[in-house]
Amino acid sequence: MASFVSPIRYENDKLYLLDQTLLPGIENYIEIQSKEDLWDAIYKLKVRGAPAIGVAAAYGLYVCTREIIADNYSGFCEKFHEVKEYIASSRPTAVNLFWALNRMEKKLLALEPEISIDSWEKEQVHIKEELKEEARRIYQEDVDACYAMGQHGLSLLKPGMGILTHCNAGTIATAKYGTCLAPLYLGQEQSYNFKVFADETRPLLQGARLTSWELNKAGIDVTLICDNMASIVMKNGWIDAVVVGCDRMAANGDGANKIGTSGVAILAKEYGIPFYMFVPTSTIDLNTPTGKDIHIEERKGEEVYKMWYEKPMAPEDIKTYNPAFDVTDAKYITAVVTEKGVVYPPYSENLPKLFNK
Amino acid sequence: MASFVSPIRYENDKLYLLDQTLLPGIENYIEIQSKEDLWDAIYKLKVRGAPAIGVAAAYGLYVCTREIIADNYSGFCEKFHEVKEYIASSRPTAVNLFWALNRMEKKLLALEPEISIDSWEKEQVHIKEELKEEARRIYQEDVDACYAMGQHGLSLLKPGMGILTHCNAGTIATAKYGTCLAPLYLGQEQSYNFKVFADETRPLLQGARLTSWELNKAGIDVTLICDNMASIVMKNGWIDAVVVGCDRMAANGDGANKIGTSGVAILAKEYGIPFYMFVPTSTIDLNTPTGKDIHIEERKGEEVYKMWYEKPMAPEDIKTYNPAFDVTDAKYITAVVTEKGVVYPPYSENLPKLFNK
Repeated sequence: MASFVSPIRYENDKLYLLDQTLLPGIENYIEIQSKEDLWDAIYKLKVRGAPAIGVAAAYGLYVCTREIIADNYSGFCEKFHEVKEYIASSRPTAVNLFWALNRMEKKLLALEPEISIDSWEKEQVHIKEELKEEARRIYQEDVDACYAMGQHGLSLLKPGMGILTHCNAGTIATAKYGTCLAPLYLGQEQSYNFKVFADETRPLLQGARLTSWELNKAGIDVTLICDNMASIVMKNGWIDAVVVGCDRMAANGDGANKIGTSGVAILAKEYGIPFYMFVPTSTIDLNTPTGKDIHIEERKGEEVYKMWYEKPMAPEDIKTYNPAFDVTDAKYITAVVTEKGVVYPPYSENLPKLFNK
Repeated sequence: MASFVSPIRYENDKLYLLDQTLLPGIENYIEIQSKEDLWDAIYKLKVRGAPAIGVAAAYGLYVCTREIIADNYSGFCEKFHEVKEYIASSRPTAVNLFWALNRMEKKLLALEPEISIDSWEKEQVHIKEELKEEARRIYQEDVDACYAMGQHGLSLLKPGMGILTHCNAGTIATAKYGTCLAPLYLGQEQSYNFKVFADETRPLLQGARLTSWELNKAGIDVTLICDNMASIVMKNGWIDAVVVGCDRMAANGDGANKIGTSGVAILAKEYGIPFYMFVPTSTIDLNTPTGKDIHIEERKGEEVYKMWYEKPMAPEDIKTYNPAFDVTDAKYITAVVTEKGVVYPPYSENLPKLFNK
């Protein structure tokens, strides 16, 4: 099996994170040696993508607490909790961050009945080993989920197909393989020779900076286009399927994803091209009835006309609208690909079945 | 009547062109004093937009030939032709450039029967006056055509409407008023209070740099968005009509315009929003049967990932596709607005009627 980039490496008891803020120009892994290093990496988006943040936080929490020397179990738990809370403050809206940190703490608390007070020093070593193992499991579960999504996704595609993707739901947004890019990597291993088109994804350019970088590096045929060229490449007959990630899916199958996704979905429908949304089951929220119930974050206008540019690209006092996400209505989504399999409409009926298994 | 920016000013026998390459940061008019000045302004896109180039070339040709001293009429024509050919070489694909230069020369040649050899010096003065008058007419005809398009366009709109536009077919692309932005200026004079959304229009950012600048300057409520946000603003219910320009329209009503226009048209159709294309009759080519017969210019990939940016935004060896235009199929165009009136489908039947009048 070919080896693809992982943004998180745990090697020889050291944790390294790929600094994604330097891409595509510089490929640099930074070592995480302290809780400050980890906080900084998450805060400054050196590690990004919900699954990747969760995995980095889990391994990072282990690394930052393995030097703790406590007098007893409850003392250890107290110090551990302090570090955990500090790391949690790095990105207060990242659900996966809390999920991973809480799972690590839950593991620690579950160890209590086993603790023997007489041999606390030995126990302390054991606790740390268990925490490392839990971080490794979180990492591996993400790799496995992405791999499974890749296999299910690949079953929908054929060799030689032209594939359009938007934003970055790739290997560097997860522990490995990515969500919607996973089938492209698995296809690559089987010489599928996909022809991929990557929307640059304004305003933050994840498609240009990240997707085109990681696919290019893996030797996959990728062509970078501006977002507004999606229509012409579809009209040219170059696109056989669209694959995108998902930030949150409602119970009816409406899916919030990076701004622009809904437009791509409408174009795909008009041109008769299947539109596949890749959604880990952890991202499906059955308590959210429809897309209308999903809050859309608005960001600063400067991202649109100032950031990246040598000089501002609009009048200084210009009004902007800069939503980070949009909601793609379920009716435009041909199928939802999860790690548990492919789900087809009607989603209100079929998404809940994933959780009954 | 409120006064809006004109990119071409002829004042006190001097010709000034707005240097559009410095927008939106700097508003500077350069004086055209020589044929080299004019060539440079056209070549470097200081003046841009098909109608504006034509008008600037006409006035420029007059200014650059008014100092000619010839021994006789044929000597004058020869020197005039030399300057004309030189200016024509500045942008070999600009149809309006040749059209305007040829019209000026035709005017000169039409004066021959009037020429009296006996009073050549006086005649020479007369010729130059006639050429200035022809340039003024070309200017005024463009202003009138844009004003007429504005009035016809305004008849389709209502006060308070939300309007989306793509690229720049505004006052600075013409002698005055613009094509698709003309109704917004005329509406502004009548307190229509439109709420305009301008697509930034990647890769060359004409929407951010030019459209948002000129509308903002005129006091029109304009919000800048990335191209991929067109879908969400339509979904939010903020858009009541889409107005765009046109670079070339085929006999069946298929219209080529700035890359991304076709995608906006498809979104408008899906959201039930009327889509109006503003097309001077000079841009309708009945000899081109359909949009398939329109050649689409491809430009350098660097415009996508390098130009404007502080550092390259994609891997150095990335493949790109960078078409300058796309074709919007006639079926997505609610109406075609010309200076002669509004044309509705079926276009194959109704467009030719414009030329029979």
